[in-house]
Amino acid sequence: MTSIERPVRFEEVDAAGLLFFALFAAYAHEAMAALFDELEGGYPALILKRRVGLPAVAMTSEFKSPLRFGDVARIDVCVRRLGNRSAELGYEFRRASDGVLAATMSHTVVCTDLVAVASCAMPPDVRAVLDRHLAPVTLV
Amino acid sequence: MTSIERPVRFEEVDAAGLLFFALFAAYAHEAMAALFDELEGGYPALILKRRVGLPAVAMTSEFKSPLRFGDVARIDVCVRRLGNRSAELGYEFRRASDGVLAATMSHTVVCTDLVAVASCAMPPDVRAVLDRHLAPVTLV
Amino acid sequence: MTSIERPVRFEEVDAAGLLFFALFAAYAHEAMAALFDELEGGYPALILKRRVGLPAVAMTSEFKSPLRFGDVARIDVCVRRLGNRSAELGYEFRRASDGVLAATMSHTVVCTDLVAVASCAMPPDVRAVLDRHLAPVTLV
Amino acid sequence: MTSIERPVRFEEVDAAGLLFFALFAAYAHEAMAALFDELEGGYPALILKRRVGLPAVAMTSEFKSPLRFGDVARIDVCVRRLGNRSAELGYEFRRASDGVLAATMSHTVVCTDLVAVASCAMPPDVRAVLDRHLAPVTLV
Repeated sequence: MTSIERPVRFEEVDAAGLLFFALFAAYAHEAMAALFDELEGGYPALILKRRVGLPAVAMTSEFKSPLRFGDVARIDVCVRRLGNRSAELGYEFRRASDGVLAATMSHTVVCTDLVAVASCAMPPDVRAVLDRHLAPVTLV
Repeated sequence: MTSIERPVRFEEVDAAGLLFFALFAAYAHEAMAALFDELEGGYPALILKRRVGLPAVAMTSEFKSPLRFGDVARIDVCVRRLGNRSAELGYEFRRASDGVLAATMSHTVVCTDLVAVASCAMPPDVRAVLDRHLAPVTLV
Repeated sequence: MTSIERPVRFEEVDAAGLLFFALFAAYAHEAMAALFDELEGGYPALILKRRVGLPAVAMTSEFKSPLRFGDVARIDVCVRRLGNRSAELGYEFRRASDGVLAATMSHTVVCTDLVAVASCAMPPDVRAVLDRHLAPVTLV
Repeated sequence: MTSIERPVRFEEVDAAGLLFFALFAAYAHEAMAALFDELEGGYPALILKRRVGLPAVAMTSEFKSPLRFGDVARIDVCVRRLGNRSAELGYEFRRASDGVLAATMSHTVVCTDLVAVASCAMPPDVRAVLDRHLAPVTLV
């Protein structure tokens, strides 16, 4: 598991004054990208140089409590299932100040050759990163 | 059921050149808002004047085929289940030019008093709108 | 001159409840893109197939009156100056319901070969489009 | 003067693969907000609790060199002019890795009572923050 923290920004709330619900998936994506910081060039090099991506094929979200401008979100991410071409990531979103659970998310990604736009076997170093974050089934 | 069409905008793609996956939920939200065009002042008046919102409590997405800048998305939305305080909406996202299925989504919303930030019974006119779009179980 | 109208969306307001000021430039870009609808494939084909872009080199904005969720913005765009490699566009943003001026903008773009990432002479059809929208100096 | 650094995110590039130009103003806003970190509750408390905002009335930008996904932007912000109700901020955007200048910006804000939506005298603590970042004329 790894965690990132990031403030809810001024322009990320909606007309109801709450973090726009679609942005939870963007926050999740930031947390997933952070997993790859340990690779040379990180997630950007994976996408732009090696042309390997991890697009979502499925996502399930439960929203528990809203986040607002001024809140800092803490996002915990782990890998729940790891295959040869795909992985399922799990996320918990909390308000950092008091730990209140804001949302949970499950996110299935498929390793993709961005030139061919076709699924491909996960490169060994990518798979090793995900394997290091593989969580016991009961964690999330 | 109702449908909206909207182009994928220049700034809505990601560094892989594809519509950023989190934005499917934003597109879904636009389609849901369009259901309320028949009410006086539409969805904005519901949110800003009557202070009634429909925040998501759950969302399930399957991503089938990417959309790109230059594509027009067609989003079909129907109501799959209608309760006193909540509703489940169903969406199909297609590339308008050829009808290719890009994604499907299920989206459960709870009618919420935005002042109290607490769930509330759906106002009759809101429920009537959703009821008119209630789909046979087999549609989506 | 040409005009587009587009509603301010639920997620485009900021924590002060106003259209986030940075998005005026995004709206301007939409209006500029609309100028090229008359070309085969429109602005997307220019960017993605012909790999010709019009990135901004300068922008000057004056903000007069805020826009809110529920407002529809009308954006008038014209070309104020047309060179061989660059053009200056002028914009007026109004609230469509009553014509109140929300903002004005000047936007200088340089025709760019997106493969070489270097300025280039404007293709004749691109220049012809801009020339048709060249405004008398006094218009904006 | 103060500085922030922030990576260009995966979803912040446009279909030309460059940081979408409208987002420079969003980055500038983040840097301005950071100036107020020293106040109790920071910029969010100013907006949400005290209902005092600093909306833009004018902005002038020059774009020198694009930023891309994988780049980290460094934004230097200073105050160039300080009045009783308004201030002019100056920004320089650089690619953090090598210091290449990406853009410069001038941003005039007016202190605003967000309840009355009318300009107001700057609260002393807000003005004091801006005064501490007042730059010699020659800096930017």
